[in-house]
Amino acid sequence: MATAQYIKKDGIIIIGAGLCGSLLGIRLAQRGYEVHIYESRPDMRKAKIDGGRSINLALSDRGIKALELIGMQHVVERDGIPLYGRMIHPAEGEATYMPYSGRSGEAIHSISRGGLNKSLLEETEKYPNIHLYFNQRCVDVNFDEHNIRFENGKGGEQYTLECERILATDGAGSAVRRAMMRHTTEKRFNFSQDFLTHGYKELSIPAADEKGNFRIEKNALHIWPRGTQMLIALPNLGGSFTVTLFQDFEGPDGFNALNTPEKIHSFFDKYYPSAKANMPDLVNDFLTNPSANLGTIKCYPWQINHFSLLMGDAAHAIVPFYGQGMNCAFEDVCVLDDLMDQNGDNWVEIFDRFQENRKPDGDAIADLAVDNFYEMRTSTTSLLFQRKKALETKMEQAGLPYFSKYALVTFRPDLKYREALVRGRLQDDFLLEYCKTVTDINQVDYVQLQADVEAYIKTALQKSEIY
Amino acid sequence: MATAQYIKKDGIIIIGAGLCGSLLGIRLAQRGYEVHIYESRPDMRKAKIDGGRSINLALSDRGIKALELIGMQHVVERDGIPLYGRMIHPAEGEATYMPYSGRSGEAIHSISRGGLNKSLLEETEKYPNIHLYFNQRCVDVNFDEHNIRFENGKGGEQYTLECERILATDGAGSAVRRAMMRHTTEKRFNFSQDFLTHGYKELSIPAADEKGNFRIEKNALHIWPRGTQMLIALPNLGGSFTVTLFQDFEGPDGFNALNTPEKIHSFFDKYYPSAKANMPDLVNDFLTNPSANLGTIKCYPWQINHFSLLMGDAAHAIVPFYGQGMNCAFEDVCVLDDLMDQNGDNWVEIFDRFQENRKPDGDAIADLAVDNFYEMRTSTTSLLFQRKKALETKMEQAGLPYFSKYALVTFRPDLKYREALVRGRLQDDFLLEYCKTVTDINQVDYVQLQADVEAYIKTALQKSEIY
Repeated sequence: MATAQYIKKDGIIIIGAGLCGSLLGIRLAQRGYEVHIYESRPDMRKAKIDGGRSINLALSDRGIKALELIGMQHVVERDGIPLYGRMIHPAEGEATYMPYSGRSGEAIHSISRGGLNKSLLEETEKYPNIHLYFNQRCVDVNFDEHNIRFENGKGGEQYTLECERILATDGAGSAVRRAMMRHTTEKRFNFSQDFLTHGYKELSIPAADEKGNFRIEKNALHIWPRGTQMLIALPNLGGSFTVTLFQDFEGPDGFNALNTPEKIHSFFDKYYPSAKANMPDLVNDFLTNPSANLGTIKCYPWQINHFSLLMGDAAHAIVPFYGQGMNCAFEDVCVLDDLMDQNGDNWVEIFDRFQENRKPDGDAIADLAVDNFYEMRTSTTSLLFQRKKALETKMEQAGLPYFSKYALVTFRPDLKYREALVRGRLQDDFLLEYCKTVTDINQVDYVQLQADVEAYIKTALQKSEIY
Repeated sequence: MATAQYIKKDGIIIIGAGLCGSLLGIRLAQRGYEVHIYESRPDMRKAKIDGGRSINLALSDRGIKALELIGMQHVVERDGIPLYGRMIHPAEGEATYMPYSGRSGEAIHSISRGGLNKSLLEETEKYPNIHLYFNQRCVDVNFDEHNIRFENGKGGEQYTLECERILATDGAGSAVRRAMMRHTTEKRFNFSQDFLTHGYKELSIPAADEKGNFRIEKNALHIWPRGTQMLIALPNLGGSFTVTLFQDFEGPDGFNALNTPEKIHSFFDKYYPSAKANMPDLVNDFLTNPSANLGTIKCYPWQINHFSLLMGDAAHAIVPFYGQGMNCAFEDVCVLDDLMDQNGDNWVEIFDRFQENRKPDGDAIADLAVDNFYEMRTSTTSLLFQRKKALETKMEQAGLPYFSKYALVTFRPDLKYREALVRGRLQDDFLLEYCKTVTDINQVDYVQLQADVEAYIKTALQKSEIY
């Protein structure tokens, strides 16, 4: 083992050069810190990283706010494709378009995960105080002696780095979090990993032609809800769509059973004929691409000895059904940045406040994301849900300050996730009951309805004292 | 590494020679299996095992049923001290005795953990088909190739054993469960560890004299409930009591703050003067004995590849407030034994049915145990709780087939834990409401009340369709 090296006093080590780590690194560099980012994988700008992880993501307001913080908001327009609503493809009949909001301009943006990560890594080159180290895997962390052990390339020499503090943005399988579990019994480290019985597999709809035209509506998130399973599609620059099948692993139609071209054809003929018509590479994609797990990770504390802090997926990995994984991780950086404004270099205070303030929001978006799986795969086809959605759109179009649960989570970065959860669930309870009694939504007095919703929320909050 | 050894086809490896593992080994030996029990610690009959783990335990009907199964029920009378109720020591005034049941003879039994474990290990000597291996730590498990790697003594040579199946009874920190977490991603292994902010520390009340007389009532579980903390005491053969303080780690009165003789004296003078009067070794015990964590571990699946199965604390570690940890682990053996009756040597079926049947009961007793912490430290002093308890005792004394929640869990091994939980909680809801309206419990028509409770439970169950 090589001799321990020492990262100088104003230096911060970031573990993981993914989306969150590279954005965080840029922000810390802007604030004058010496930033050392260690990444276990090769430099993705040079090497081809193996696929299987989500190819595109939905970037929305919370994430954009973080890009603005580091001055990179231009990537949204340059690299993203705005999606203004959901295109619902029922099992029979025509597709229905449901806008995300009745306000014009409220959109989420389909963006390439790899492309965005590369843009962030490129940006780090502008900062001489950012140092990138690739192929350096974190093997262990000593939380008492404040050092980290790395492996230099796969199976390579191990060495130890001493430092003042580390920020761990090494994702759902965080090596730092695993070290916390191994070594910090006295911290009573609470941890849970919960998997859905469903997994996901990525497939594709190629461009319609060489000019990059799209085969289906470009500016929508497509959903084929089928009760216990669903297919979704997000557009890519160049005319293709990344398609994702969410399905149980087990059962006669489960991933484990769909193992021959015949079975795959027959499954898609049965459930997704309209999508299949646009998927010439279906069988090859299906047999080649992995079926990946969907899980939620919660843990606490996030900081140990004011030496290490978990951020992003390392602290709170969630299922993808709200399109908030990256947005939540980016928002973590904004929250940390606010705390640096308030506390200067007092990292004891920053670490303590970060985990206290942010943990309830990590839990909230985790629970919202699981909720939305059930909503997306089933409720989007129910008449009651569609009526409620239409009513909400009318209220938003009427210029009322109304935001659906989805809009609260997605378009209101001024609200904490926990606030969006409580308010969103109460609104839904009220409106779903209300919609049972409504026959013609055009005859509804929206102003009165909005007032009734507000009154219901106010009463419920007073009762529960949630806020 | 030594060459792999092979355990012959009818052999079963048990990891862990604790209470559950040794009882399980005896039962399997009685059924004719070759049983190989590997234990990481030395033979406790020869070496002194370090303390810190609970010194005595409350053995009750579920555990006794398992001892009966292997023909060892005689240890209850020989080594146990029956406790017929709780002696509640309030902050001021006289102690109150609350029987566990209005039926005579229903008791739990205070028994030495180490003593019982040694008795079980002694018993294994009667079976030539039980093989014990001490100081053999399980380092890793290969679930695909069906082998286990052990370390022969601390830092010693490692070797690999191939076998048909292993039963892991290696406790809350199970090495087999940790291996499952590392290696079985494709099994979507759900796991949670949740710690209370409270810990526990063991103290003692010595015997009154050399004849082994007791300083306080022998046949009761003593509780000093103090709202956010409590002290309890269980008797030992020989006249002493093991006393346990349950207290927060943090705060001005927390374990971390109580670090000088002066602070310990002052703390016990303030909260537990009546206990302190009987604790001459208080300060030394307090400063010498560790403050240990209290946590709940849940996980699923319990079996992997029909090769390994978690049982006892390895599958479901719980907090000690219902006195059911050992009883639940012993009951696991009874459940497995029933499944062997039904399925013969079909271990695929046995493993599958065991985890499916038993998981809801493991979850139920885990939740009940956390509930009881709040009940023991607070409710035992409330007038409403005492009135409810007195009413329940009256119903039991009246010869009615009534069982309090505590009695359902403790004295009714014919009920599953999940059934005891649902019925017990519903009873409590009903009776606590009822007691708000009662002024004189002697004027209550118990027969009618029992019928009302039953009707309430029936309606609630029909509504929720829990059964």
